Amino acid sequence: MRETTALGVDIYVAGWGHTRFGKLDDSLEDLVVASSSEAISAAGLEPGDIDAVFLGQFNSGIHPLGFAASLALQVSDDLFGVPATRVENACASGSAAVHQGVGALLAGTARSVLVVGAEKMSSASAATVGAGLLGADYEHAGSTSSTGFAGLFAAVARAYNDRHGDCSDTLAAIAAKSHANALSNPYAHLRKDLDEAFCRTVSERNPMVVDPLRRTDCSPVSDGAAALVLTISPSEYTRDGLVRLLGFGQANDFLPAPKRDPLAFAGSALAWQRALTMAGVTPGDLSFVELHDCFTIAELVLYEALGLTEPGQGLSAVRDGWPRRDGRLPINPSGGLKSKGHPVGATGVSQHVMAAMQLTATAGEMQLESPRIAAVHNMGGLAVANHVSVLAAL
Amino acid sequence: MRETTALGVDIYVAGWGHTRFGKLDDSLEDLVVASSSEAISAAGLEPGDIDAVFLGQFNSGIHPLGFAASLALQVSDDLFGVPATRVENACASGSAAVHQGVGALLAGTARSVLVVGAEKMSSASAATVGAGLLGADYEHAGSTSSTGFAGLFAAVARAYNDRHGDCSDTLAAIAAKSHANALSNPYAHLRKDLDEAFCRTVSERNPMVVDPLRRTDCSPVSDGAAALVLTISPSEYTRDGLVRLLGFGQANDFLPAPKRDPLAFAGSALAWQRALTMAGVTPGDLSFVELHDCFTIAELVLYEALGLTEPGQGLSAVRDGWPRRDGRLPINPSGGLKSKGHPVGATGVSQHVMAAMQLTATAGEMQLESPRIAAVHNMGGLAVANHVSVLAAL
Repeated sequence: MRETTALGVDIYVAGWGHTRFGKLDDSLEDLVVASSSEAISAAGLEPGDIDAVFLGQFNSGIHPLGFAASLALQVSDDLFGVPATRVENACASGSAAVHQGVGALLAGTARSVLVVGAEKMSSASAATVGAGLLGADYEHAGSTSSTGFAGLFAAVARAYNDRHGDCSDTLAAIAAKSHANALSNPYAHLRKDLDEAFCRTVSERNPMVVDPLRRTDCSPVSDGAAALVLTISPSEYTRDGLVRLLGFGQANDFLPAPKRDPLAFAGSALAWQRALTMAGVTPGDLSFVELHDCFTIAELVLYEALGLTEPGQGLSAVRDGWPRRDGRLPINPSGGLKSKGHPVGATGVSQHVMAAMQLTATAGEMQLESPRIAAVHNMGGLAVANHVSVLAAL
Repeated sequence: MRETTALGVDIYVAGWGHTRFGKLDDSLEDLVVASSSEAISAAGLEPGDIDAVFLGQFNSGIHPLGFAASLALQVSDDLFGVPATRVENACASGSAAVHQGVGALLAGTARSVLVVGAEKMSSASAATVGAGLLGADYEHAGSTSSTGFAGLFAAVARAYNDRHGDCSDTLAAIAAKSHANALSNPYAHLRKDLDEAFCRTVSERNPMVVDPLRRTDCSPVSDGAAALVLTISPSEYTRDGLVRLLGFGQANDFLPAPKRDPLAFAGSALAWQRALTMAGVTPGDLSFVELHDCFTIAELVLYEALGLTEPGQGLSAVRDGWPRRDGRLPINPSGGLKSKGHPVGATGVSQHVMAAMQLTATAGEMQLESPRIAAVHNMGGLAVANHVSVLAAL
């Protein structure tokens, strides 16, 4: 990797906070305030040091407060007047907020920004949540499909089967890997040791949601929040140390499905290329990746779309071992969206926090051995909004 | 908090597009595409010249598509991969998108950005629209108040009456001024010559909405979109010429009402001060202002909060004549939100477009005589999110 980044300025992740993910009693405000307060404090800063706030939240009619950016100001009366903006890119809203925060630092309009991602889903009815999530799809927004995004990703899985052969064993292996990793993650929604046989087998406890996706192929509906402080002027008194941003990339694809190859995830590939190019790294330089496994089939397609393996070779990836936590390139050592949980707007920020924990060797039981460089991949819709960041240990 | 400083780079509004505001047959996509296509073309650019897109939209459950940022990519297949992000700050979502666009130029991540604000409201039921709009209020989000934001601004009007004396005559004068100005605006939703006596008098055609606000004190529910191109690298071939951005400011206040003085609009005052300081201008330098008159009482309070007149002196402002289009400092020569209409996310972008038209002497029948410098003020909630821009003729 290059010594100085193409960013032209040293940007650090300097502190972070994370609530547990799951079905929680906390309100949206509770979640935003808890994670934000922790992040500011962990960065060794006072609330008055924060120049701007970016909130990642999807909402889409799920939560009645449609104007949540200023919730983070509830952290302290010292935050009066701080510019706060909500950023939305469906399930990539969290990383969209991170990238707007980076932009504010590059623009010179802020020296330290608070980025918080949050979603409160469990207090809404299943029908409201389902309709809200389908609001991320151009063709299905406003419809009342009971299967929601599972139906859309099941179609991706069927297209994969048609092109490369049956992927059910691989999806089960990915699910089992994800569950095993989440056992070590104290923030995870699902901490169950479910093995490949369980994930492979359709059963009462693991029903088919939409063929070929079983329940264990789908991320759960979760509440939660994650926050981080980005700064060009880090304090000496951080709780966990610093992580450097090496590069970032965003690419949006067209909303209508017929304009996208369902197995190409072309926008994800472009965002990935942009971020790695800016960072001056290749996939071989990466120590691990947190990527957007809203469904196991998404993780499988991303192995190939991001160039981590050859097209069609994703089928044997987990069996080959490279994406496991003891493999060459661990994928989702946190458990990923699938097992950590997927409070939509929180997810992208959480991915950055999980990466920062690993890179500062503060990841506890999740800790990998001496990771140096991590990539975070977060997408909204079927690879419509795509955000990638590259982070490095100091 | 770091003080804002001068921009340090020349940023231009180089082209703009605007749909009619009103109850329209067009879809959200139609509105986004029409205004965006016009803006890119008017800037003398091709779609492939656009480096990033920012969409301002409130939505708040009003429209089923909860993930609208990429709609602007429907303009052209050449927009594949362009980063597109939705920005939300309630009724200030449009200006929030403008300011994120400015940030991308300052950050050096883009040379030309498309900013589009849009809202499609008339296809939802009145109950859905009412609930969505109340979603911008911390205390009332999730409730089913039939009076919505009118009830909140009526309370501001009553507080004003208590502190300064009855403002009903002034509100009627503001409403009549707004209607008179909108007669010359081909994009306006309400083009009716309603005089002060009509606006002052409660009648079948002008019922009391919430005492003391009559129907003529309230902006209508509208569909519409506006778009503009911001660039540091303008084409020679613009349709209408260029406008320069001199400064901008954003300030967010706390969401809970007890933390805000209902007559101070303190966040608006701070954003105003930040933008004018960055621009290096005083209110005396301004040729006109487009300000956020969602209700006539908002315009009255803003006269005082922004320092355009002394506290309590807003009562005589319109009678004194200075805010009229032939006065010292015309306020809302476009007709403002009240008569032009208020498709929430479109409003802030529309205000910038109206200012750009005036400053390039392309405002047609609305045209003021040789305006040089304009301020745009846009707010979300009861002065919770506040955005101000200062624009100048070349």
